[in-house]
Amino acid sequence: MSTITMHQAQSVLNTCLNKSEELGVAMNIAVVDAGGNLKAFARMDGAWLGSIDIAQRKARTARFFNMESGALGEISQPGGPLFNIEVSNGGLITFPGGIPLVLDGQIVGAVGVSGSTVQDDLEVARAGVEILRS
Amino acid sequence: MSTITMHQAQSVLNTCLNKSEELGVAMNIAVVDAGGNLKAFARMDGAWLGSIDIAQRKARTARFFNMESGALGEISQPGGPLFNIEVSNGGLITFPGGIPLVLDGQIVGAVGVSGSTVQDDLEVARAGVEILRS
Amino acid sequence: MSTITMHQAQSVLNTCLNKSEELGVAMNIAVVDAGGNLKAFARMDGAWLGSIDIAQRKARTARFFNMESGALGEISQPGGPLFNIEVSNGGLITFPGGIPLVLDGQIVGAVGVSGSTVQDDLEVARAGVEILRS
Amino acid sequence: MSTITMHQAQSVLNTCLNKSEELGVAMNIAVVDAGGNLKAFARMDGAWLGSIDIAQRKARTARFFNMESGALGEISQPGGPLFNIEVSNGGLITFPGGIPLVLDGQIVGAVGVSGSTVQDDLEVARAGVEILRS
Repeated sequence: MSTITMHQAQSVLNTCLNKSEELGVAMNIAVVDAGGNLKAFARMDGAWLGSIDIAQRKARTARFFNMESGALGEISQPGGPLFNIEVSNGGLITFPGGIPLVLDGQIVGAVGVSGSTVQDDLEVARAGVEILRS
Repeated sequence: MSTITMHQAQSVLNTCLNKSEELGVAMNIAVVDAGGNLKAFARMDGAWLGSIDIAQRKARTARFFNMESGALGEISQPGGPLFNIEVSNGGLITFPGGIPLVLDGQIVGAVGVSGSTVQDDLEVARAGVEILRS
Repeated sequence: MSTITMHQAQSVLNTCLNKSEELGVAMNIAVVDAGGNLKAFARMDGAWLGSIDIAQRKARTARFFNMESGALGEISQPGGPLFNIEVSNGGLITFPGGIPLVLDGQIVGAVGVSGSTVQDDLEVARAGVEILRS
Repeated sequence: MSTITMHQAQSVLNTCLNKSEELGVAMNIAVVDAGGNLKAFARMDGAWLGSIDIAQRKARTARFFNMESGALGEISQPGGPLFNIEVSNGGLITFPGGIPLVLDGQIVGAVGVSGSTVQDDLEVARAGVEILRS
């Protein structure tokens, strides 16, 4: 199993922090490895306390199903094929902000961002994903 | 980080108790500090036992996201951007009755009220918020 | 089932707060009713955050077994008859500071105090018990 | 309530990482703020997965009782005054490696280190505490 190193995780995290400052938002940022276990985390000053947990769940959700957390949300709405999947795994977060991290074509972990609108969360998470890809 | 003192928390709580008596309802009232940790609590005679937990979760929810618990409920409905956020943080309560407490322009904690209709819960919580602001 | 009223619970709590100030200690104080459910709580400024939970568990433990939490601790030491009882009920606290509250010869609830040495915790809890008895 | 900033938390964390490399050990390092909530975390490559949770609990334990986690362990042995305190607060860790962080004479958070012997854990945590003090 290929997995993210601590330095790669910190690089993703720092890129997310820079993007957050650029957007003027206070975020919680979590990076998990290929095993879904926490590798790096930071909470910006003034960021929501409730997002400590959500950022980590977004990252885990993205790695647990190898898709963006928001993609899982689309297929777990009322009437959808995976309705209520969020009660599994001790609680999933199925709105945007969690994205798998890919290196050399393999998923090596995931990043989760929480603290603003889901659009901002997603934009910050995408910045983190890109730095690893480049 | 500014936080509420015990005497301020008790003042909020007593104001909520007076408002509840005025309305003729039996409430559970919880006050948390800036760190989201319980500072003061009271359960009126005859109040719902199930609301011991709900009052505390409403207060924590309001502080965790720096908004009224009911505001979070509006954006976490099916199809909404934060659908199912309530599975995070060990369980959030996203209907009205939890409000951040503000002092000198800073959020210093939150109050949560549960025991009657959400309208009553909210009216009692608002009374507690006002006493701190005055 | 006779149980404590909110005003009696607040009287116990306030007596404990006064005793704590007299001793110069910062306490968490919890009162539960005859059903073992939280009735009143206060955390003094600067009191240990970890004692929010412990004060409540001491009170519940005292009511769950109708004895002082410390008395349960004496019979649950290694080799004792109730060794490891603390893993039941979601976690009991079996050192001093939790005492049943008695009114007219009936147990109507319990008080739990945590924040200093167990001697101080116990002395403060006893003050609360006495006010109800007088 | 004074609390640690993200940059201070990251400084503590990086100092702990450097000390760990110097000792040749793979650690999990967590920093919580004054409210006991996670502020920064890193897991070194090859560090124990089970220590993700322990590092965080050590930090919380140190802040919850404003003492080193190992000091709490000394008074919670069988026959000790706080025997079995670890069942409270969802699970405390009472062996060395968690230390309060002090700035200008006030506790502003805590650091928790887990991944090697308790002696190594403690030495790494102490390095983090010192950087904030200097």
